[in-house]
Amino acid sequence: LKTIHVELKDRRYPVFVGQGLLGHAGSLLRRRGFAAAPVIITNRRVFRLHGPAVLQSLDKAFGRAPVIKIGDGERFKDHSTLLKIYKALIRLHANRKSWILALGGGVVGDIAGYAAATFMRGIPWVMAPTTLLSQVDSSVGGKVAINVAEGKNLIGAFHQPSAVLSDTNALRTLPKRELRSGLYEVVRSAAIQSEPLLCYLERKLPGILSVRSREIEHVVVEAVRIKAAVVESDERESGLRMILNYGHTIGHALEAATDYKKFKHGEAVGWGMIAALEYGSELGLLGVDQKAQLIQLIQRVGPLPSLRGISVESLWDSLMLDKKFSSADIRMVFLRKLGQAEIRTRIEPASLRKFLQRFLNHQQRSEPRP
Amino acid sequence: LKTIHVELKDRRYPVFVGQGLLGHAGSLLRRRGFAAAPVIITNRRVFRLHGPAVLQSLDKAFGRAPVIKIGDGERFKDHSTLLKIYKALIRLHANRKSWILALGGGVVGDIAGYAAATFMRGIPWVMAPTTLLSQVDSSVGGKVAINVAEGKNLIGAFHQPSAVLSDTNALRTLPKRELRSGLYEVVRSAAIQSEPLLCYLERKLPGILSVRSREIEHVVVEAVRIKAAVVESDERESGLRMILNYGHTIGHALEAATDYKKFKHGEAVGWGMIAALEYGSELGLLGVDQKAQLIQLIQRVGPLPSLRGISVESLWDSLMLDKKFSSADIRMVFLRKLGQAEIRTRIEPASLRKFLQRFLNHQQRSEPRP
Repeated sequence: LKTIHVELKDRRYPVFVGQGLLGHAGSLLRRRGFAAAPVIITNRRVFRLHGPAVLQSLDKAFGRAPVIKIGDGERFKDHSTLLKIYKALIRLHANRKSWILALGGGVVGDIAGYAAATFMRGIPWVMAPTTLLSQVDSSVGGKVAINVAEGKNLIGAFHQPSAVLSDTNALRTLPKRELRSGLYEVVRSAAIQSEPLLCYLERKLPGILSVRSREIEHVVVEAVRIKAAVVESDERESGLRMILNYGHTIGHALEAATDYKKFKHGEAVGWGMIAALEYGSELGLLGVDQKAQLIQLIQRVGPLPSLRGISVESLWDSLMLDKKFSSADIRMVFLRKLGQAEIRTRIEPASLRKFLQRFLNHQQRSEPRP
Repeated sequence: LKTIHVELKDRRYPVFVGQGLLGHAGSLLRRRGFAAAPVIITNRRVFRLHGPAVLQSLDKAFGRAPVIKIGDGERFKDHSTLLKIYKALIRLHANRKSWILALGGGVVGDIAGYAAATFMRGIPWVMAPTTLLSQVDSSVGGKVAINVAEGKNLIGAFHQPSAVLSDTNALRTLPKRELRSGLYEVVRSAAIQSEPLLCYLERKLPGILSVRSREIEHVVVEAVRIKAAVVESDERESGLRMILNYGHTIGHALEAATDYKKFKHGEAVGWGMIAALEYGSELGLLGVDQKAQLIQLIQRVGPLPSLRGISVESLWDSLMLDKKFSSADIRMVFLRKLGQAEIRTRIEPASLRKFLQRFLNHQQRSEPRP
């Protein structure tokens, strides 16, 4: 069991990383000061896989925990599901002393955390992330949100959990594509903050991809450390935290332009990083060798879905709707060198658009015909 | 122009109180560092009364401010109105740098503040309260919320405004019953924290009720000071802030038991204070003279709607649904003496219920037949 503390003064909390943690959730959380059973929010698939172990462990520590199950998938991260969660909490007589255990991936964490942020003006919550993506990224930092028809995560809050339980054994049940999707985010974290982690990824990728305990745990712990350090220095994303957005500007636009159907989030970020590397290179940032080295690592993580059929117009329209993409001063994150990010302000829209056109053309031409 | 600072460290903000402030909103807020026009959220009635002055003033300082109008009344403080506000914000291309000016009473403040708390994980907002109730109470402290079918303010957040503009001239256009409703909350604030303000209310009540500038301004300033001091010591309502709940436990139950149709909020608090005084007296708190003195002041504010037709069963059921009313340890606020509150824990439910039965019987018997 490894513990990383996210140091946010009165909102300080531990991230526990280890094998089989879910089976010890009850005793761990009891030691953290929780006195009664939580309300579990999860989805059906995750609950089938991990529910029994979690319930049994909570049972011993607190007595029976009620369970609210939501649908599986991003489309359930909406107001309609949120209202159902509120209704279920009320039906369960949840009050200000209740707390929520979010068991699942990013969707469950985001909506359960947002419910915790807003139910009775905020109740505590604990995140038990069961995907690599949520273990290395969304579970740390307290960003919670839901989607509206007009865009993803447009409604949300900052609501730090009281603890995070990352059971690396849960990653064994993860579809390989989900695992790789999470790994692109690990590459992102390493790229902006940690050359040693980049080296580790390059050396140990096969072991990581086969979810070997030692390697996967190291990767989760290091990625959490990076995320925690960035969040500690800028909880509300007013400055430095933006570097976590590396690969995400174009990544989000790719997801939106394809209606969130073609790419897993991490895959879009993978493409977004490649695009940022190429554009950064045109802007005179990062040497050609380093660029090639990182692109190679991204490609080794696994095959990225094709960019075929994506027009620069649709990509641009999506970019213009990005809530972080203010029209007056477009900012993007680049690498100054491997392991070090740089925020560039005043990106010239016309130049970026032309680059995207070239990038899409080049990638689409170089792909094998289907 | 009087300024009271609510000292909440990095969320410190000023409450401006004065005559004709709304006509200076633009210059005041420009000096506070706002650089662009806000999105105004208001209701039709308030906008008809105060919109032109506010718009003109904002025009000069920032250019034209877009306006989102919601329905007038508590029933519009719901998810359906909230979703309309989100949609309007998105249509207006609001982004993280946008800010909201809430122009109106408690309903507008609560829902506009909640929209500000959750839109893109929180954007700044300024409250311009136009009712006495919101000037002396809800505009200070950052509690924002919406209602769900199961109860009021069950969904919400703490989101401090960047400034509050309380124009006492706006109170001249207020229906007298609304004015009195706000005054009961002033009595509440004085009762728990300030004997001098109680004396002032006793001496100057006629002037206050006729909205004389000097008197009404004094009352607003003092009530804001009291509220600010309590909020400063307990922003998230984990302890002391509960004393603001004086008269509200039974008050809320009266409102809920009558489906929020019979009483204005302040009127219910008026009754709630009378009940708390009687029950406190039975528990051996506060002398008979002081009790009578405060009940007399409450009654002088104006006639309270009859309690006829309210059963102890319906009152009790409502009480049990109160989110602050935890079944394990019922807490209620009483007065130790005039101007000093005391939180009593472990209230005996059976004893409280019996008291309520006696109280309702007594009040209903002593009322003149309709």
